[in-house]
Amino acid sequence: MCRWLAYTGEPLQPAALILDAQHSVVAMAENSPLGAETVNGDGFGFGWYPVANTDAAGPRHPSVFRSIEPAWNDQNLREISRAVVSPLFFAHVRAAAGPPIQQTNCHPFRHDNWLFMHNGAISQFGLIKRELALAVDPSLYPLMQGTTDSEVLFHLALTLGLADDPIGAVRAAIRRVEEAGHAAGVQFPMQGTLAVSDGETVWAFRYSSQGRSRSLFHSADVPTIRAMYPDADRLSLFGDHAQVVVSEPLNDLPGVFREVPESTVAVLDPEGYHHEAFLDA
Amino acid sequence: MCRWLAYTGEPLQPAALILDAQHSVVAMAENSPLGAETVNGDGFGFGWYPVANTDAAGPRHPSVFRSIEPAWNDQNLREISRAVVSPLFFAHVRAAAGPPIQQTNCHPFRHDNWLFMHNGAISQFGLIKRELALAVDPSLYPLMQGTTDSEVLFHLALTLGLADDPIGAVRAAIRRVEEAGHAAGVQFPMQGTLAVSDGETVWAFRYSSQGRSRSLFHSADVPTIRAMYPDADRLSLFGDHAQVVVSEPLNDLPGVFREVPESTVAVLDPEGYHHEAFLDA
Amino acid sequence: MCRWLAYTGEPLQPAALILDAQHSVVAMAENSPLGAETVNGDGFGFGWYPVANTDAAGPRHPSVFRSIEPAWNDQNLREISRAVVSPLFFAHVRAAAGPPIQQTNCHPFRHDNWLFMHNGAISQFGLIKRELALAVDPSLYPLMQGTTDSEVLFHLALTLGLADDPIGAVRAAIRRVEEAGHAAGVQFPMQGTLAVSDGETVWAFRYSSQGRSRSLFHSADVPTIRAMYPDADRLSLFGDHAQVVVSEPLNDLPGVFREVPESTVAVLDPEGYHHEAFLDA
Amino acid sequence: MCRWLAYTGEPLQPAALILDAQHSVVAMAENSPLGAETVNGDGFGFGWYPVANTDAAGPRHPSVFRSIEPAWNDQNLREISRAVVSPLFFAHVRAAAGPPIQQTNCHPFRHDNWLFMHNGAISQFGLIKRELALAVDPSLYPLMQGTTDSEVLFHLALTLGLADDPIGAVRAAIRRVEEAGHAAGVQFPMQGTLAVSDGETVWAFRYSSQGRSRSLFHSADVPTIRAMYPDADRLSLFGDHAQVVVSEPLNDLPGVFREVPESTVAVLDPEGYHHEAFLDA
Repeated sequence: MCRWLAYTGEPLQPAALILDAQHSVVAMAENSPLGAETVNGDGFGFGWYPVANTDAAGPRHPSVFRSIEPAWNDQNLREISRAVVSPLFFAHVRAAAGPPIQQTNCHPFRHDNWLFMHNGAISQFGLIKRELALAVDPSLYPLMQGTTDSEVLFHLALTLGLADDPIGAVRAAIRRVEEAGHAAGVQFPMQGTLAVSDGETVWAFRYSSQGRSRSLFHSADVPTIRAMYPDADRLSLFGDHAQVVVSEPLNDLPGVFREVPESTVAVLDPEGYHHEAFLDA
Repeated sequence: MCRWLAYTGEPLQPAALILDAQHSVVAMAENSPLGAETVNGDGFGFGWYPVANTDAAGPRHPSVFRSIEPAWNDQNLREISRAVVSPLFFAHVRAAAGPPIQQTNCHPFRHDNWLFMHNGAISQFGLIKRELALAVDPSLYPLMQGTTDSEVLFHLALTLGLADDPIGAVRAAIRRVEEAGHAAGVQFPMQGTLAVSDGETVWAFRYSSQGRSRSLFHSADVPTIRAMYPDADRLSLFGDHAQVVVSEPLNDLPGVFREVPESTVAVLDPEGYHHEAFLDA
Repeated sequence: MCRWLAYTGEPLQPAALILDAQHSVVAMAENSPLGAETVNGDGFGFGWYPVANTDAAGPRHPSVFRSIEPAWNDQNLREISRAVVSPLFFAHVRAAAGPPIQQTNCHPFRHDNWLFMHNGAISQFGLIKRELALAVDPSLYPLMQGTTDSEVLFHLALTLGLADDPIGAVRAAIRRVEEAGHAAGVQFPMQGTLAVSDGETVWAFRYSSQGRSRSLFHSADVPTIRAMYPDADRLSLFGDHAQVVVSEPLNDLPGVFREVPESTVAVLDPEGYHHEAFLDA
Repeated sequence: MCRWLAYTGEPLQPAALILDAQHSVVAMAENSPLGAETVNGDGFGFGWYPVANTDAAGPRHPSVFRSIEPAWNDQNLREISRAVVSPLFFAHVRAAAGPPIQQTNCHPFRHDNWLFMHNGAISQFGLIKRELALAVDPSLYPLMQGTTDSEVLFHLALTLGLADDPIGAVRAAIRRVEEAGHAAGVQFPMQGTLAVSDGETVWAFRYSSQGRSRSLFHSADVPTIRAMYPDADRLSLFGDHAQVVVSEPLNDLPGVFREVPESTVAVLDPEGYHHEAFLDA
């Protein structure tokens, strides 16, 4: 129902991927060939971590800019995505599947130093919303500001230990959703791709109860891309450690974007990209 | 934290009270002398019932127009409040005390043929939000679209029998809020004035746990006002059964607006106005 | 760059055409098969004349509701298009081609009892905007509230006698645009379909300098449609004099919608529909 | 009709002045004791220059974030004013005196490396809008995106040589406004305080035809303030060259803010603050 992108690597002006890429996130908002819906015009969000300050102790806290306007004509997104540089950022364009168009329903969601975003849906969420909301830790319950399934899923993962074991907590949260859904007679409760970050690593999950998840791709490593396309001037924008995971390829160049397999979690960190089995549908 | 008005009587162009009165609801948005806050610029809402159609069976369903812009410069409110006529309408301007600025947090709230609006707050709502939300009937829980204390209070009242006994259900809902608040160590959990309607009668409550409620006034009956101010041309706009209950007087004419006493419920119906004791603080 | 609809006939709840038709105006906002752009998500407008009041002298004044949100998820449009009935209304969904997303750039535009809307563009408007704005009557100049080519075109037509001779004034305005464009080296200055009304008649123009105008259709007369589709229950919504002119057919039923020819003006009035030659490209 | 602030000095997180000061710009939006209107809730704008990059040739280009929501509850302003640091920024909260509430009517306005903002009005602007707009250079005319008197004034100043002689160009623009106003029978055509910057210097003008201009203050130099208030921890946020010019004092500390005299232009540059006579009313 949405499209998203997560970047990690050398500090970058986010506009390079959000606005200027051939099939940028903003272009996907208006026309998304691989999306469940081609139009993702129900608001957007952009979350970014600051460049590391070696003096500062502790984790870096991200900033978030969200708007209910379609991304394609939002002037503020143009300004802000050129005014900052960031070593790790999330961008998301929304196609609402029910919950209202309001900033609190726009991704990414934030808690402390964590960002979270989601494309997909919990099927028949209204049937199990109350049960899932009750499964959220009581101290986190009043912090939910919107009405999406995605925000509940994030708070379930926080409840189930996201800060200590991100992969395990997302697994447990999805299993909780599936249990509740199955008990309510929903055959395939979970659908989606998810990204979560603590400011250093990005974990990107592709999973659906039916085994037919929304599309998800990751970039090849930059030195490899440079070798493939030595004349591509645009590559000079990117450092050797630049990597993205994104709902669909940002350009049409063969070999630059590779599919993230079903039922896997992709991990993007300073070591590079790898993925591992996550859950069986 | 807000200001509101409810009208019942002969079908009227709502702009007469929302825009054109000396201290109209829109004027109160920018400057509210009796309000807990003088500026109520965090969105507004307008709900209205259609003129009765004698052919139609069953209750009349209201329409609602809500916006996150300040009421004072909203062009659409100007258009719509002049384009319709209504025998019963609610208008509300919001001063947010925490929950985000979004249409789903603007009053009035609607369920079937019922409208509800609130000025005031549940003190330290975050402490008891989860408990109160759980007390809402599970079938109503997923229908809550925003994040205000007021919407939860409305759904509590619906859960506790609003459709059958409006006064009893609001009393029970407030008692539920006070129990939860006291258990959480809140001395004065409930503050506010509330209005609720089924499309025929308006019930307006003035109550706070501390016995110091937000201001609330009702209009004298129109024939009496005409006798007091025989030269007031503006009175020709109003029928003999026109009556309002409103957060503060719509004009400075002595005798036109009278205070609704503490701990009472005012009832406006085709018989006219009366109030009765509601709850002791 | 946009899609629009104009209705005239028996008073009708506009939602029947704006929301509920198979290919309603709201559906066209998200997916417009015949549009120059398939997505028309840059705001919308809805203008409607009240039901005639036989007591009132003079022309009827329309109301206008405009929003910068995409039409497909705007809750207020749902409310208002069901809450009113109107014998003549305009609806428009916008795909911006440059001018900013703001209510003052949303159609229809209004002046006294006149409404105006446009799909298309004045080519390279920036080159001749100043010249055309200067050609607007000085008393009308400060009334232009937005920055679109369409609003300038409307005010040019008002300057050139719209109130007395609508067809002649629109012709003169378009000729003025073409003169200015040609002088600035623009080969095909004018593109579009236009609708204008005084509250009794709708004039709908299909014209472009190149002779390849945006799509435009009109409905067959209702008794004919009833004879063609005797089992279509939905037709009971419409009176015998209901007629629309619209950017593309509202449904897939053969014979219900017919193309308005190039370089013609369609006239919809209580006598029914006819079109006549307008301008040669 | 508005309130504004301009900062220049060591790179600073703008939130220090926009959000966190005792009487911050956001506080002035809701309550402005010295303003012509106490509520400035009709949108806001924030424009900032980047930290100088010694590698880059030529002037620095500012970014602009503008919104039609009241500043006091805008979440994005909170995020962005904490996420950037800037050696020179403008912030403005608007109280509309006629022109519509839309981003293109929010200050600051931008042209190349220049920012401009205004508090006040051209009296009876509708009478002379056309004449003033015609006095704008034809190449600049189509770049005006909104409908305010302020934007026309900025483009008049650009036409009259702002880039080469800022003080002379603003003087000439104001004289042009006064000539047009007087010719149209307006006694006091110009009212206001203006700020303009090229990214290195801020020029702030206080002038009105009547000699009774809107309030304007500048800060004392920081070392002097430190000597006056040695225990003020908050001063550690600011470098020795930090200086602001602002519609009203940001705090209640005697001596920190000093009035800019009538009919002067204040100049803030790396040399510090001074003002000089500007125009006689």
